[in-house]
Amino acid sequence: MPAVPAAPAATLVVIDRPELGSPSSGPDDVGFRLVDPEQPTVHVTDLGVTRGDGIFEGLGVVDGAVQALEAHLRRLARSAAMLDLPELDLDVFRAACLASAAAHEPAPFLLQKLVVTRGVEGGDGTPTAWVRTAVMDDPAPERREGIAVVSLDRGYRHDVAETSPWLLQGAKTLSYAVNRSVLREAARRGADDVLFVSSDGYTLEGPSASLIARFGDRYTTPRTDLGILAGTTQAAAFEVLEARGIPVSYELLTLDRVREADALWLVSSGRQIAPISSLDGAAWTVDGVETERLADALIGRRE
Amino acid sequence: MPAVPAAPAATLVVIDRPELGSPSSGPDDVGFRLVDPEQPTVHVTDLGVTRGDGIFEGLGVVDGAVQALEAHLRRLARSAAMLDLPELDLDVFRAACLASAAAHEPAPFLLQKLVVTRGVEGGDGTPTAWVRTAVMDDPAPERREGIAVVSLDRGYRHDVAETSPWLLQGAKTLSYAVNRSVLREAARRGADDVLFVSSDGYTLEGPSASLIARFGDRYTTPRTDLGILAGTTQAAAFEVLEARGIPVSYELLTLDRVREADALWLVSSGRQIAPISSLDGAAWTVDGVETERLADALIGRRE
Repeated sequence: MPAVPAAPAATLVVIDRPELGSPSSGPDDVGFRLVDPEQPTVHVTDLGVTRGDGIFEGLGVVDGAVQALEAHLRRLARSAAMLDLPELDLDVFRAACLASAAAHEPAPFLLQKLVVTRGVEGGDGTPTAWVRTAVMDDPAPERREGIAVVSLDRGYRHDVAETSPWLLQGAKTLSYAVNRSVLREAARRGADDVLFVSSDGYTLEGPSASLIARFGDRYTTPRTDLGILAGTTQAAAFEVLEARGIPVSYELLTLDRVREADALWLVSSGRQIAPISSLDGAAWTVDGVETERLADALIGRRE
Repeated sequence: MPAVPAAPAATLVVIDRPELGSPSSGPDDVGFRLVDPEQPTVHVTDLGVTRGDGIFEGLGVVDGAVQALEAHLRRLARSAAMLDLPELDLDVFRAACLASAAAHEPAPFLLQKLVVTRGVEGGDGTPTAWVRTAVMDDPAPERREGIAVVSLDRGYRHDVAETSPWLLQGAKTLSYAVNRSVLREAARRGADDVLFVSSDGYTLEGPSASLIARFGDRYTTPRTDLGILAGTTQAAAFEVLEARGIPVSYELLTLDRVREADALWLVSSGRQIAPISSLDGAAWTVDGVETERLADALIGRRE
């Protein structure tokens, strides 16, 4: 195996009792434990690695505070249900996320990765689960300069989550090889990121971000029943906008309609918010003032 | 993490030099080594587990002989190219597969799993790779009784591998959560396995097997340019049939056309060959004589 690169001060919490109702061994058993993050902890027969059979969440940690923890836990539970995984003990997961963040040396921006797999092949079905917290780069530079985005066909119709739920669209699974492949395709086209489009022409989401579009003074995002993730950062941004009295909506947006927007952003837990500066090679106006205003609010979240 | 279940006599070979052209440290450096299969060897930051970002092959080992090893290595290289992974040193992989099989205590049927991931996040890009060999159940019972199969929409058009190569259809990736999810859907419908159908009505493959259909005295299988895997066992079966002078073909088959077949089989490296005894609830005639004849030839392969 290749040497693991130096990742100073990453913290790793392994969750021993991920399932709701699993018996505690005593008052000292909190259901998880800190382990050495440099040591391998995953077995080669874990279904997370042999089949990408599991789910995850990425959480931002700003000045020590885990952002949108409850929203992430709710989405984790939703993904678990979509994959027929055992019901998770969200109290244990919540405590594990907080412990993983608290154990990390202070830093302005941390990224937390919460992973749950179906466990090992031929095992008793107990999920494998962990939370890893590590420093992340300051997302400020791409917030100022914007990102070049290309639209790519996701191959599915916009209604596939309803017609074919076994395709797991809308669950945040570990089977993200395509979400990585499209970034390589974007790079080949000279772009930084991707906007997925359904095979019937509707705008969906990025491989690790939600789209927000501004039309005049209104903000909109693709409807979350299109087999896409309900973005925790998009939801937080809409809360901020609504508190300012700005109208927001969830819509069925064709790519052509998105091309009429006055400004476009990709939002996600780690990067928070990045303005789109070009779409399929066409330059786009970066709304610097609104980007910073939203960024301040998003980064300022302490829960 | 849950305890790893007892898997007596599994062998695990970790490949230290998966890349073509990586320097050997000396004459004793064969590029791989046997490790304890019970110990975790995968890091939580491995892209194989965090993103399902890697590829695999499953190889049958009968009476100690690794079957279709060259065909599997060729397909592994093809999958690696489709995922823009580094070019693999197939000589090292070949030797690792043979060593993993040779180290195993003798058994009539073994299954070998060869995995290559994109390595660890933030690493130098060196793939993580291993070969695990373990006993498998004798596939004879389901060969006699047949399997109940349901057809399920894969959500993609039949030509998506050509129009949208970033969807990685036709590569054997670790992102197989859907291939597992459809088996749970099949179980809910009282079936054992699945036949994927394209969104425009063409028959594709099973989640871990190829389809072979007999129409009269002719055998056919779906064309392998439909974003499906070129099956190593299907190819071996067609070689056997052709040697007997029986006509075989690769076709674009609608599901309606498949329903007119006289006999249907799913074939794969582990299970070898299983006759379909029902399709979407309709009983199907199991061609027991031909199944056993093909099974004898497939199981009899010693390379």
